[in-house]
Amino acid sequence: MFERVAFIGIGLIGSSLARVIRRQGLAKQVIACARDEATRAKALELGIVDEATAAPEKAVRDADLVVLATPLGAYPKVSAAIAPELGMGSIVTDVGSVKAAAIRDVAPLMPEGVHFVPGHPVAGTEHSGPEAGFETLFEGRWCILTPPAECDQAAVDRVAELWRRAGSMIEIMTAERHDKILGITSHLPHLIAYTIVGTVADLEDSTQSEVVKYAAGGFREFTRIAASDPVMWRDIFVNNQDAVLEMLSRFSEDLARVQRAIRWGEAETLEKLFRRTREVRRGVIEAHQT
Amino acid sequence: MFERVAFIGIGLIGSSLARVIRRQGLAKQVIACARDEATRAKALELGIVDEATAAPEKAVRDADLVVLATPLGAYPKVSAAIAPELGMGSIVTDVGSVKAAAIRDVAPLMPEGVHFVPGHPVAGTEHSGPEAGFETLFEGRWCILTPPAECDQAAVDRVAELWRRAGSMIEIMTAERHDKILGITSHLPHLIAYTIVGTVADLEDSTQSEVVKYAAGGFREFTRIAASDPVMWRDIFVNNQDAVLEMLSRFSEDLARVQRAIRWGEAETLEKLFRRTREVRRGVIEAHQT
Repeated sequence: MFERVAFIGIGLIGSSLARVIRRQGLAKQVIACARDEATRAKALELGIVDEATAAPEKAVRDADLVVLATPLGAYPKVSAAIAPELGMGSIVTDVGSVKAAAIRDVAPLMPEGVHFVPGHPVAGTEHSGPEAGFETLFEGRWCILTPPAECDQAAVDRVAELWRRAGSMIEIMTAERHDKILGITSHLPHLIAYTIVGTVADLEDSTQSEVVKYAAGGFREFTRIAASDPVMWRDIFVNNQDAVLEMLSRFSEDLARVQRAIRWGEAETLEKLFRRTREVRRGVIEAHQT
Repeated sequence: MFERVAFIGIGLIGSSLARVIRRQGLAKQVIACARDEATRAKALELGIVDEATAAPEKAVRDADLVVLATPLGAYPKVSAAIAPELGMGSIVTDVGSVKAAAIRDVAPLMPEGVHFVPGHPVAGTEHSGPEAGFETLFEGRWCILTPPAECDQAAVDRVAELWRRAGSMIEIMTAERHDKILGITSHLPHLIAYTIVGTVADLEDSTQSEVVKYAAGGFREFTRIAASDPVMWRDIFVNNQDAVLEMLSRFSEDLARVQRAIRWGEAETLEKLFRRTREVRRGVIEAHQT
């Protein structure tokens, strides 16, 4: 499919896609760019890339596909660095969780004749780094592409085909829609998980150690979510401010209502809420998202 | 171990313990009491009980062990109903999630010579009903017993032994301590999950269906938690008001701080929080609670 694929960033997502490309022979050469020496060594050791470099401008030389797989905050600097080296007709895509910000930070820096196709595989685990990746990560998962109107259709098709090979289902939507939906399904849940685990981290040590001991009752799931990469998530919240704040306001209002219901022993209000949420779960199960 | 064990309520927890008792031959007879005809039929059909009745007072006759496994709200009525039928020296235990309330509602109604041993297996799934139970549910999980000071030690030992046979590790603590800890590890996470799924349930239909479609990003876990039994959870919140409200206040304050950090783009504050929470996760993993 490709001659040379360059990954800028080779963590959980990048390395998983690199594994797909390797295993299926979708590129002649795969090169990884990572700032961290240990990450580069690991990627080489795993045999998922042919070369590794610390310099993004070197990585993208002669690449017909460049995959930005760094935290969002690195996009402006990386884009500026690689722009002069990108070949005519090459495709740049990304895997970032906020698409309007990706377009804002990358698109203006792309030279004429380079096609930027913003993408987001809705998949992941709480683990980070190239060793955390695995080939089946994207299987049966959605990959959302948010190409701006002027985007080259052939480039979009090629990126979509790559994700299909990884086992993903493709969806096309606007960056704004994506950011709103993912703000709800992914960003807000992560924020809440981080917050509650932070609340527990502030408890006195004796209580905290017991909380950890009996975490099986629900808290455990939150700690898993709140173990995700801190830099990646920092950049998500800073870059999807509006959608996250909007949902956070709604959530806070709803939480205040629930708090009041508990304080006043309004059993019926609580039961009604708890019944409604079962419906949503049923929808998720029917959508095969379990 | 026992002659005749009576389960008052035979849902996820009750039926799982009944399976353990059956499989290991820990009682000569097992009887279930369930209000719902379909539940009784199911319990009999599954072969996990010898008899099923709608009348708690019938179920406990000649039982040397009675296991209360209904939602907490049923405790006062059930206790009043069974009290006259309980034999001298018999043991009553329960599996409810709030122990101070269990003691408040059950202990005063127990006749002289009947031993009430409050217990709580920290295990479960989001599924309900006798068909949801399974024999290994308690394996490797904590079972917390909260016997009041005057409780008969031999009775406590027998209940503890039963849970050990189910594969659980036993911990003894006061009801107050239990309710505080579980308020944090279990009740608050459930409340938050119910609330956020409720927030989504209030969204316009088109957005909601997309949220369900892309639930994989974190929201999915919340829908799973928020699919738990509504009546059981209603009763938990009404009965563990103080501990839940205290933690909810702390959480709300922390959430407000995070909200502010996002609004003002305070990337460092966010990253610092997200790094701290990883430590807690490490603790949970080390405590083998994953």
